[in-house]
Amino acid sequence: MAPSADLVDPDAGFLAALEATLGPGAVSPPEQRYLEEPRGLYAGEAAALLRPRDTAAVAAAVRLCSEARVGIVPYGGGTGLVGGQLRTGRPRPVILSLERMKAVRRVDAADAAMTVEAGVILVEAQAAAERAGLLFPLSLASEGSARIGGVLATNAGGITVLRYGNARELCLGIEAVLADGSVFNGLSALRKDNTGYDLKGLLVGSEGTLGVITAASLRLFPRPAETATAWLAVPSIAAALELLGRLREALGDAVSAYELMHGTGLAFVAETMPEVAQPLAERPLWSVLIEAGTGAGFGLAGRLEAGLEAAWGDGLIDDALVAQNAAQRAAFWRVRESMSEANRRIGAISSHDISVPPSRVAAFVEQGRAALEAVDPGLRINCFGHLGDGNLHYNVFPPAGRNRAEYMALLPRIRAGVYDNCVGLGGSISAEHGIGRMRRDDLARYLDPAKLAAIRAIKTALDPRGILNPGALLPD
Amino acid sequence: MAPSADLVDPDAGFLAALEATLGPGAVSPPEQRYLEEPRGLYAGEAAALLRPRDTAAVAAAVRLCSEARVGIVPYGGGTGLVGGQLRTGRPRPVILSLERMKAVRRVDAADAAMTVEAGVILVEAQAAAERAGLLFPLSLASEGSARIGGVLATNAGGITVLRYGNARELCLGIEAVLADGSVFNGLSALRKDNTGYDLKGLLVGSEGTLGVITAASLRLFPRPAETATAWLAVPSIAAALELLGRLREALGDAVSAYELMHGTGLAFVAETMPEVAQPLAERPLWSVLIEAGTGAGFGLAGRLEAGLEAAWGDGLIDDALVAQNAAQRAAFWRVRESMSEANRRIGAISSHDISVPPSRVAAFVEQGRAALEAVDPGLRINCFGHLGDGNLHYNVFPPAGRNRAEYMALLPRIRAGVYDNCVGLGGSISAEHGIGRMRRDDLARYLDPAKLAAIRAIKTALDPRGILNPGALLPD
Repeated sequence: MAPSADLVDPDAGFLAALEATLGPGAVSPPEQRYLEEPRGLYAGEAAALLRPRDTAAVAAAVRLCSEARVGIVPYGGGTGLVGGQLRTGRPRPVILSLERMKAVRRVDAADAAMTVEAGVILVEAQAAAERAGLLFPLSLASEGSARIGGVLATNAGGITVLRYGNARELCLGIEAVLADGSVFNGLSALRKDNTGYDLKGLLVGSEGTLGVITAASLRLFPRPAETATAWLAVPSIAAALELLGRLREALGDAVSAYELMHGTGLAFVAETMPEVAQPLAERPLWSVLIEAGTGAGFGLAGRLEAGLEAAWGDGLIDDALVAQNAAQRAAFWRVRESMSEANRRIGAISSHDISVPPSRVAAFVEQGRAALEAVDPGLRINCFGHLGDGNLHYNVFPPAGRNRAEYMALLPRIRAGVYDNCVGLGGSISAEHGIGRMRRDDLARYLDPAKLAAIRAIKTALDPRGILNPGALLPD
Repeated sequence: MAPSADLVDPDAGFLAALEATLGPGAVSPPEQRYLEEPRGLYAGEAAALLRPRDTAAVAAAVRLCSEARVGIVPYGGGTGLVGGQLRTGRPRPVILSLERMKAVRRVDAADAAMTVEAGVILVEAQAAAERAGLLFPLSLASEGSARIGGVLATNAGGITVLRYGNARELCLGIEAVLADGSVFNGLSALRKDNTGYDLKGLLVGSEGTLGVITAASLRLFPRPAETATAWLAVPSIAAALELLGRLREALGDAVSAYELMHGTGLAFVAETMPEVAQPLAERPLWSVLIEAGTGAGFGLAGRLEAGLEAAWGDGLIDDALVAQNAAQRAAFWRVRESMSEANRRIGAISSHDISVPPSRVAAFVEQGRAALEAVDPGLRINCFGHLGDGNLHYNVFPPAGRNRAEYMALLPRIRAGVYDNCVGLGGSISAEHGIGRMRRDDLARYLDPAKLAAIRAIKTALDPRGILNPGALLPD
């Protein structure tokens, strides 16, 4: 039940054997940047960094590690926020970076699909689709660094899930190296395939604990010919949801992003990033950034403006600014994308990535405020996120003028307050960031026991030696 | 490795214990209809029929069967076409029918979701959504009998996958009884949930071999205010695909069905079901039934007609008939839905449910014709299906005037011809029907070996005694 208890620290002889197999330059001491958590929360440890050039080399490396019982931490862009890419303590693992596997193997416009290797950076995948006149819609804050392998291993979400789905839904097939070094050749581009269990869907979101994804076949979509973007001040979350329902009816499936932001977050941006211009002079309690896209000839901008005008008449919005050009659209998005950095500069005590059914978001926010006031009335909350998905990034800060270190003793009560509230409303304690090593105890506490038992059984079945990302998702 | 080798035939004492636990009337001798394959290909065997009334009773039954090592065949509407619901031979299993669990537990319009029990018939689920002003889009020929549990266990597809996805994508959460009798409480209605492996997605499509689905949370959609349906004669598959691409661009994501039919199928309908009126006087080689739906005010009918007119001008269609009213729309669909019955009356030697990337459908058809001519030049082929998904129902018939029994010796060569052609084009040997017991050998032959090994390992991990649907998907 604790397979990685038997893992060993790789010795020089093993690393030499790895290098002999993978070729010169593919095995090196780990550079510092592979051992850093993006927010500087802690440092990882590793015996070596492997950078194989192709799937056969990944398979060979996994086979050698399996035989020697050496742990492997698969590594994409290193942007994960839950420590899935960083292991501390002994025995040390090797880091297996996919960064040299960055070929776009094919783009098949006729089938609206493309096959890319795991090391392709998300923006490069988007660009490859664009060159073929198509859209790969997955978009998230770290898209300039995150690599496709990691994006799939964590089932990344982002701002377009509302319309296009999560990474899992955008993935038609994968190629992956399993724990014994065998290669799962599942790179089909089929919309329907009922030949046995959904191994692709199982590996996607398994955080590198069941296999190393080496390539993927991804779904592409038509590029919207018309795009419209607006910044809204809304009187309440309920009003924002009512408006979303109306606009989805009026615009079909055109709404691709619907981002909610609290006034506290806008104040944080104003305080720590004054160079970021904010669309409205006043900062309302709640703002929404909406984007929609359609084919040509739809008259999207006019329809959106008509919808907003009606909503204003019905009291669903207090103010609205429709982007008049690409620069204004980018300026709106810049505010939204500055939110995480502003949070970081203020310094959260505790950060959460929760989801509830959309109709429960307002209750979650209200009850959360009450629960945290009971812990300490001075605590500040900034929440923002993907309202259409019921997904909030919910962050708790010390009172103004104080720093997080003074409040760390409250952390367990804050965390329990947030998660109890979330789970009580039928929610998830990790909507899109995953579990990694930082949410492992929370998973053990809040997950359905039958699911937890099934996860353990599957892990033991597919990785009996526990070499794949040991300590991620489940304890060692 | 062959866990069900240890299964036992249930004796009277065991059945009495089951009845004592499940209550009077919940355990009975199996009626004949539970033992019939829909096409009469073979008969199943079972020691008893269990009809539990709630999830706790299902869990109790599974626990007892696990302890006694009695096999369980989960049973929905009995409409499966690959024998997943029928086991032959000893030791006999019990049939666990979910038919008494048919509550619609809740419809949550605000979150576009509903929770239904496994025994709800698909048309009843559609009706429950409709009463709430919403759409549950899953639609297939057997929807009047198929039950939600079976639809999910087989990851059913049908005619609307193009727009709305397979059953797996339409399912937000499930409740299921696992092999040890524990209950997986996963009935959330979340669009984003990254807490561990995708157990829901794994159970969906596992054909009752990993758990018994007792309830599901399903995604709902806005009902289209405008619908348009047309019957087209197209000069080629390539032209039909080109047209689909154009219409998807012109109509946004509005195209919900795009069904291809070969002239042979229309001739079969004319021959065996003369009461079914066909839209066009002539029967072209290829016909398409297209349906699209949008919100109000889109002007869908006019846009579709304009698109078809342009396509006619460019030689992409030879003829088109746009349904002018609901009766005409129903008449078009009746032809499409008569296809399977007409095939049955003609009597296929071999029936297949394959998928390839859409751009390869034409090559599949052309190469398939050549491969079967090499087997016997008199063989007739009727293929039809969901062109937008690359999914064809591909059926092989004896020459006119001959019967299938005379040609059954050719079956292995026919099957190899069809599947080798399909797999060579990157396709799947089972697009939507699953594997059951009738495609088990084909799975073992054509599936990626690493995936097959993973399937075996997962099955052994989650059902170590092999009691769940023994012999389905994998050999005993």
